[in-house]
Amino acid sequence: MRPTDIILKKRGTFIRSSDGKQSLTGNTVLTQEEIKFLVTNYAAGKIPDYQMSSWLMAVYFNGMTFEETGWLTDAMLHSGDVIHLTGYEKKGLTGPFVDKHSTGGVGDKISLLLAPIAACCGIQVPMMSGRALGHTGGTLDKLESIEGYKVGLTPDTFRSLIAKTGFAMTGQSKEIVPADRLLYALRDVTGTVESVPLITASILSKKVAEGADAFVFDVKYGSGAFMKSIPDAEMLASFLVKTAVTMGKKASALITNMDTPLGWKVGNFLEIEETLECLQGHGPEDVMDETYALGAEMLMLGGAVSTKEDGMAKCRAAVTSGKALTKFLQNVQDQGGNPDKLLSEQGKRRSPFHVTLHAKQDGYLSLDAYLTGVAGIDLGVGRNKTTDPVCPDAGLILYAKTGSRVKAGDAIMEVYGKDDACLTPACAWLEKAVSYSQNKPESKPLIYKEIHL
Amino acid sequence: MRPTDIILKKRGTFIRSSDGKQSLTGNTVLTQEEIKFLVTNYAAGKIPDYQMSSWLMAVYFNGMTFEETGWLTDAMLHSGDVIHLTGYEKKGLTGPFVDKHSTGGVGDKISLLLAPIAACCGIQVPMMSGRALGHTGGTLDKLESIEGYKVGLTPDTFRSLIAKTGFAMTGQSKEIVPADRLLYALRDVTGTVESVPLITASILSKKVAEGADAFVFDVKYGSGAFMKSIPDAEMLASFLVKTAVTMGKKASALITNMDTPLGWKVGNFLEIEETLECLQGHGPEDVMDETYALGAEMLMLGGAVSTKEDGMAKCRAAVTSGKALTKFLQNVQDQGGNPDKLLSEQGKRRSPFHVTLHAKQDGYLSLDAYLTGVAGIDLGVGRNKTTDPVCPDAGLILYAKTGSRVKAGDAIMEVYGKDDACLTPACAWLEKAVSYSQNKPESKPLIYKEIHL
Repeated sequence: MRPTDIILKKRGTFIRSSDGKQSLTGNTVLTQEEIKFLVTNYAAGKIPDYQMSSWLMAVYFNGMTFEETGWLTDAMLHSGDVIHLTGYEKKGLTGPFVDKHSTGGVGDKISLLLAPIAACCGIQVPMMSGRALGHTGGTLDKLESIEGYKVGLTPDTFRSLIAKTGFAMTGQSKEIVPADRLLYALRDVTGTVESVPLITASILSKKVAEGADAFVFDVKYGSGAFMKSIPDAEMLASFLVKTAVTMGKKASALITNMDTPLGWKVGNFLEIEETLECLQGHGPEDVMDETYALGAEMLMLGGAVSTKEDGMAKCRAAVTSGKALTKFLQNVQDQGGNPDKLLSEQGKRRSPFHVTLHAKQDGYLSLDAYLTGVAGIDLGVGRNKTTDPVCPDAGLILYAKTGSRVKAGDAIMEVYGKDDACLTPACAWLEKAVSYSQNKPESKPLIYKEIHL
Repeated sequence: MRPTDIILKKRGTFIRSSDGKQSLTGNTVLTQEEIKFLVTNYAAGKIPDYQMSSWLMAVYFNGMTFEETGWLTDAMLHSGDVIHLTGYEKKGLTGPFVDKHSTGGVGDKISLLLAPIAACCGIQVPMMSGRALGHTGGTLDKLESIEGYKVGLTPDTFRSLIAKTGFAMTGQSKEIVPADRLLYALRDVTGTVESVPLITASILSKKVAEGADAFVFDVKYGSGAFMKSIPDAEMLASFLVKTAVTMGKKASALITNMDTPLGWKVGNFLEIEETLECLQGHGPEDVMDETYALGAEMLMLGGAVSTKEDGMAKCRAAVTSGKALTKFLQNVQDQGGNPDKLLSEQGKRRSPFHVTLHAKQDGYLSLDAYLTGVAGIDLGVGRNKTTDPVCPDAGLILYAKTGSRVKAGDAIMEVYGKDDACLTPACAWLEKAVSYSQNKPESKPLIYKEIHL
């Protein structure tokens, strides 16, 4: 097998008819052996970057089937360690193991809520999360804003915490899917990021490596999402679900809106605070609606309920009974934090570098999620490079979002920065993120579509 | 300017409509600055192979305009030395400088004839040729089968010989278009060879570097050609001519058939011998027809004649008068050979490793050019790798080609090899190259189309 032949097969060949029109011929669908050969040898340093990048570009143009995407995912997955959750039944790891993945947004603290809620309903949640990058926040950075909280769990600790509390929160070790790190770095500099099968394999290989049997995908669309348009988000959701199924996993997806931030708080500790508010029974409507919808999917996939209505009711009961809060605080303690200290900081812990923004005019306000997230990078909520530090106490408390009616001079948000200097550039982004109109902006449904197989 | 942005621009972006159909958006036409940035920095080692190869693959899919192809050619051209023919008028370099380029075939000795013929008609021909590779022969290897003949001329010698005799024959130095060597090696291993704009820039950059003002392209189609189909050959011919024109050069092209070898002799010295026969006035009809057609194009481009008919008549007169033969022999002497010795070898110099092939049955014979060329590699006419040696005396004397009527047992060709061992595998290829039919195979016109602007 030669890499060039695999590149040529994925590329296909243009043939020209006598009128000069060209069409691509040839079967561009690779076999499992071809994909495995390419990925395994690339990860081993035996196939050079320049062959991989021309193959990636051919994939951008000619796509991949769900089966090919599954084989790619599988080959990437086996480039590194895979966490095993089965075989530990006697230690309390009984499953069902269901995880949720979000494609990323602004103010999205739903993973933090969903893990304890699902754990209250008989699901075991092996949650492996990421860090903030660009305009989107990261679950690990939020958790680390809790003093003492440790996210780098060993596989043994990860398993024992899931067995004990029903969930655990960790990050990916370097041994998890090293091929994804190599491929992602290459895609980033070769114009091959925006390929749905490649995005799917990147997400799915990491999810499957953490050992779950079933996945709910929250695929966001809108200004603050990775996928800006509904058709793009649908395509990705469909690829994630169908590819997971070809790999023998269960999966479903929700396509949700990310044109304006989720909830009223954006930041690291500020989102932990809003998580507590949610679990205490007074969470924002959008956050709770989306949490219950995603929770119901997790319960259905795990076989804990048979209808969406039952699933939502069970999730709601986990919150109203206070059980989900208890589980969350138990996890805080188990992963190194102090629950009492955390509760005592609620509503009080704020960065001293602070400014309040006011409405410039009367009207209906719109708040753009992407520009809000970009302001967050300046404030210290997020980061431009993976090596940048984040500030736990930076962030925003919103008083108005898209659709809110405001009067000139009303306070529309509190802005907290990592230092004094960052407030000016951040506020410049925030002023751009805010716009006003005389007519109420069309409200988009939070949950656009559910994708089941 | 960032390489990734240039890659992304050439790639464009797929957008999906609500019915899931995707279409490519965005202006993928690069500016001259972008192309120059990419090629110059790549040639300087500042842009890595992996970025160049994903760009090349994007070019395969999205193509290039004639203007972009001209800018690419220009940027490649200026990666190395350019031979200047202007400014030497006092030394006899008056022009017009017209060259001919063939996309390569089997038995194609037309460059060897055309240079002295055009030189007899007032054209100065700066001919820079290539070597045999794969199944196609190379003008330099043919010339070097003449004892003592030197093809590595310095620019000064090249210029002085053109001024003296009207033509000179040389190879490319390493200093000519180094970017093409880098790009070609990269394309070869990244599945990006078969792109018409990239092929055009590769051919044209080398042709422009040799200093001519005008070019005739012999673009071959058929089994023994680089382009197998007429539409592909037309596309390449059109790109070569239009791109040359955007670069301020004159150009035209003939699209000619290469399903069966040209002439009755294939090899290195054997093709020199057939060249002598042609110049002595008894050349094969196909070789002479194509030579006069290409010669007429050269004379028209150089302004020596105003009609094709005049051009063909002048070329024919150069042969019948014996002037072209004299010029050819003068060049042999000037470039280190011995014309008398050469003439004395005519019809006599043969490899001792020899076999005669006979017809297996009665009928009309067909002889496939590609498979004949592949047999030639075994015999020592051509080479698999650029570093392989060739055998000057290896080759074929054909008694039958496509369309010849034969009887079982008739001698159909003499086969000469570099050694005894090569004859068996070569003859196996030649048996495959020969087929028989009861009805006369449809004869394809030798010259399918002329392309003028």
